[in-house]
Amino acid sequence: MSNLFTSVGDHPFDRAMAMEPAGANQFATRASKDYWNMVGPYGGITAAQMAQAVLQHPDRLGELVAITVNFAGAVGEGEVVIEAIPARTNRSTQHWIITMREKDAQGHWSTTTTATAMTALARKTWSDDECAMPQVPPSGEVARYVTDFRVEWLSRYNVRPLLGSYPEQWDGAISPSLTRMWVSDEPPRPLDVQALTALCDVFFPRIWLRRAKRVPIGTVTFSVYFHASEDELRQVGSEPVLAQAQGQGFRDGFFDQTAQIWAPGGTLLATSHQLVYYKE
Amino acid sequence: MSNLFTSVGDHPFDRAMAMEPAGANQFATRASKDYWNMVGPYGGITAAQMAQAVLQHPDRLGELVAITVNFAGAVGEGEVVIEAIPARTNRSTQHWIITMREKDAQGHWSTTTTATAMTALARKTWSDDECAMPQVPPSGEVARYVTDFRVEWLSRYNVRPLLGSYPEQWDGAISPSLTRMWVSDEPPRPLDVQALTALCDVFFPRIWLRRAKRVPIGTVTFSVYFHASEDELRQVGSEPVLAQAQGQGFRDGFFDQTAQIWAPGGTLLATSHQLVYYKE
Repeated sequence: MSNLFTSVGDHPFDRAMAMEPAGANQFATRASKDYWNMVGPYGGITAAQMAQAVLQHPDRLGELVAITVNFAGAVGEGEVVIEAIPARTNRSTQHWIITMREKDAQGHWSTTTTATAMTALARKTWSDDECAMPQVPPSGEVARYVTDFRVEWLSRYNVRPLLGSYPEQWDGAISPSLTRMWVSDEPPRPLDVQALTALCDVFFPRIWLRRAKRVPIGTVTFSVYFHASEDELRQVGSEPVLAQAQGQGFRDGFFDQTAQIWAPGGTLLATSHQLVYYKE
Repeated sequence: MSNLFTSVGDHPFDRAMAMEPAGANQFATRASKDYWNMVGPYGGITAAQMAQAVLQHPDRLGELVAITVNFAGAVGEGEVVIEAIPARTNRSTQHWIITMREKDAQGHWSTTTTATAMTALARKTWSDDECAMPQVPPSGEVARYVTDFRVEWLSRYNVRPLLGSYPEQWDGAISPSLTRMWVSDEPPRPLDVQALTALCDVFFPRIWLRRAKRVPIGTVTFSVYFHASEDELRQVGSEPVLAQAQGQGFRDGFFDQTAQIWAPGGTLLATSHQLVYYKE
């Protein structure tokens, strides 16, 4: 893959989304160091790359409505190839199967990530948000969170905690795993469906909050349902969005997380859920 | 495909799960008439078939932990072929890509359904259900719901509504879309992971309850996270389970649903979510 990327903005997120055609339905890219986690890329940025493979595919029909991304194996620093196949195209909807592959230590292409996605032509109908945005102070009145937990991707987000912040004491006390916070890209960047995909994975692990104990974790599957159209996302601009997450069940090595993202005006932008492996 | 099925129980659900090897990673079957909906099979039974293709695959590692099924096109009455590919096998986890294909009117094989799934070796860790079962009367004290909505698959479930039942008046009044009910297979059958997959789709459309209006709908993507092990499911036996569902957002043709399933003793068995198309 050449190092020449075209039509890419200066923002780290735009650079992370750049990819080049590499054969039928295939696109070459690599994990962004700007979004590096401890031993690989931030899962949200990998999920956004899977979305981007669909969104920049020449045969795409409509806007992204839903995506599920499965983290099957570690993504490294090498070139990856994302294959995005339109498995079924209907009149107004389209279903995608997406895989990311990277060369393993033996030089074989190994699947690191799988995904399915659905796109659909936008249309207007009766609409109603049942899950109302909680009453919270506006983002301008909430201080930014500064962490001593030094991973690169955390510097790509401006997080302003409201409820259920990162535990200060790791004393093993059981607490509700409900977190609320204002979040925006850092530096600010107009919200789009790719950035919203990444942002839905921004929460620290629910089990750390529930148990006040840091155990090894890793997301295994992650879904986003996009309630907002591309137009509605454009209206958010680069304003912080309200992000809420909570776990429901922690059992024998896996816990789940449900999440909601609202525009500052209260419009529900996305709902998300994930299942996360934990070790102890 | 021959009509000879081996090792199949007498229950309609067992007959619906029967499939035969049809090449590498491929299994032939068809949609069960016992679980027929208005113009095709009940989505839950199709999802369970996708799970079954993994569960009876000779290369499967461990128990089913998560599955996402996408309803890409109509499933008809003809033979279908389910392909279940182990995309990545790790030491204790395995990721699957699954597709269902059926011959279309022109005789071409067309993808009707896509899915991804994860299996993992069972192991014991610290565990905790944060989402507690609501306090409800025991199933023996709740009357079975009898509907005039005549589709075959509804006769395969014994539903005992507690809250947010099927609207009696279609007057357009806006209500919370929260439903609680006891549910069991009909006739009774010991719960397993396949049956639990199907059962997570048993709720009538949240938008009908929210709007008190019946509009055309169809699930487009459906996920289940299995918190219970196969052992824990066996302990439920054929007792009714408590099923709860609610919508969060209804916008421009799609609404979501989150759901929880508990054993009668209060153990969280599964959490589920889906995105559903609606017309008006």
